Amino acid sequence: MNKNGLLYEGKAKKIYQTDDQDVLWIEYKDDATAFNGEKKDKIAGKSRLNNLITSQIFQSLKEAGINNHFIENLSDTEQLVRKVTIIPLEVVVRNVAAGSLSKRLGLEEGVQLNTTIVELYYKDDALGDPLINEDHIRLLDIATPEQLEIMKTNALKVNEFLLKLFKEINVRLIDFKLEFGITDNGEVLLADEISPDTCRLWDMETNQKFDKDLFRRNLGSLTEGYEEILTRLGGTSNV
Amino acid sequence: MNKNGLLYEGKAKKIYQTDDQDVLWIEYKDDATAFNGEKKDKIAGKSRLNNLITSQIFQSLKEAGINNHFIENLSDTEQLVRKVTIIPLEVVVRNVAAGSLSKRLGLEEGVQLNTTIVELYYKDDALGDPLINEDHIRLLDIATPEQLEIMKTNALKVNEFLLKLFKEINVRLIDFKLEFGITDNGEVLLADEISPDTCRLWDMETNQKFDKDLFRRNLGSLTEGYEEILTRLGGTSNV
Ligand SMILES: Nc1ncnc2c1ncn2[C@@H]1O[C@H](COP(=O)(O)OP(=O)(O)O)[C@@H](O)[C@H]1O
Ligand SMILES: Nc1ncnc2c1ncn2[C@@H]1O[C@H](COP(=O)(O)OP(=O)(O)O)[C@@H](O)[C@H]1O
Ligand SMILES: [Mg+2]
Ligand SMILES: [Mg+2]
Repeated sequence: MNKNGLLYEGKAKKIYQTDDQDVLWIEYKDDATAFNGEKKDKIAGKSRLNNLITSQIFQSLKEAGINNHFIENLSDTEQLVRKVTIIPLEVVVRNVAAGSLSKRLGLEEGVQLNTTIVELYYKDDALGDPLINEDHIRLLDIATPEQLEIMKTNALKVNEFLLKLFKEINVRLIDFKLEFGITDNGEVLLADEISPDTCRLWDMETNQKFDKDLFRRNLGSLTEGYEEILTRLGGTSNV
Repeated sequence: MNKNGLLYEGKAKKIYQTDDQDVLWIEYKDDATAFNGEKKDKIAGKSRLNNLITSQIFQSLKEAGINNHFIENLSDTEQLVRKVTIIPLEVVVRNVAAGSLSKRLGLEEGVQLNTTIVELYYKDDALGDPLINEDHIRLLDIATPEQLEIMKTNALKVNEFLLKLFKEINVRLIDFKLEFGITDNGEVLLADEISPDTCRLWDMETNQKFDKDLFRRNLGSLTEGYEEILTRLGGTSNV
């Protein structure tokens, strides 16, 4: 497989075309951004950590029967995935109050939620990724009700899987964000990444943070936190 | 019926108890507030206009079979209503893009929506009345799924009724906010007010605004706009 032209450069990844029109080559970047791009930095090693963690999680999800875009890991910072047309929704699943949910509802961070929360955000940087509801999604024609149902059901399945996975390594899964896309044959497929950039992950005993809040809130070394996750997952350079 | 002790004073109305524990005495105030209380003013005559407009609309809704808390108008600024326990949700219905919807989704104000939008906001001044979804409502135990369904269905019925009512007087119903409450016997009942404070109302031909945006955006005399609505509705001092 050859890496061809750059298709898209996002805040965290570069996406290249390949010889196979159904396959994309993802290169993770060392850039960290927060607050819709207002806070920015280069953090050496972040690309490797997110690529390896995402590769491992998506591979495990596949093995557990939760289909997704992941094909194979190529290097410390690169992976091959199935090409999809991304549905511009961020599907957020929450088990514990934190971040914008704590702000929105006035809940203390760290409070266990008595019900799993799914939120839908419109993936649009210019609008600041606003929370939206299913009427807004219908209005903007972002996804059909059927596609939305698949996304929500799968998001909850991913949550069940990840809760277990992280519990085994003594990590508390607070919340996470997923993106889905549509394949050429119309299938809704889990895509993008699952990494400490897109999850909140706290140590089960100490509540120490191993995720992007380290960067957002200047709480300590981002790479040390992400490396802890990779190590606990048993990850090495060549998954 | 006697007006007894003050039960609650809100931003726009004072609520008194009466001799009948199921009946409340509402006194409209001349206060105008916007942006969660940041902008404030006293506007002589506003209480009369909102009380008379609300009385007339709730009376018409009742006659059309849409049950609500309204009992009778008492004076220019007072009315009797059935006491309910207010469900802390603002149910917003939108036919045309404006206000926070335009901001949230990047839609130009005045654009007709191809689908009616219902939004649910958590009625909590300290949190700035945030948009929430049905998972949040379950988490906060604000309303049961059944109560929510009744509220949404009734909100759409009110929309159908109001669209027709305002069309007849050459007014475009852009959007509006409803509040519902629960009676002592557990019934979900439409409550609060429907007035130019809680609706966006534009002249059908000129798009001239007759609603609270006159105050929010300093666009002209609030009372002239509200008076135009009352006049077109055929309202007088003693409805
Ligand atoms: N399988 C895929 N096919 C096509 N695009 C994808 C796939 N997986 C992820 N993407 C998209 O790649 C882009 C680059 O990722 P990223 O740098 O994280 O972007 P962003 O700045 O939007 O967060 C994003 O728009 C993401 O949705
Ligand atoms: N039928 C009713 N029974 C009990 N409370 C009501 C009823 N109708 C309206 N209310 C409540 O009366 C209060 C005063 O109204 P208002 O001044 O508009 O308050 P706010 O500042 O919350 O907008 C509000 O909390 C409103 O929900
Ligand atoms: Mg991204
Ligand atoms: Mg009010």
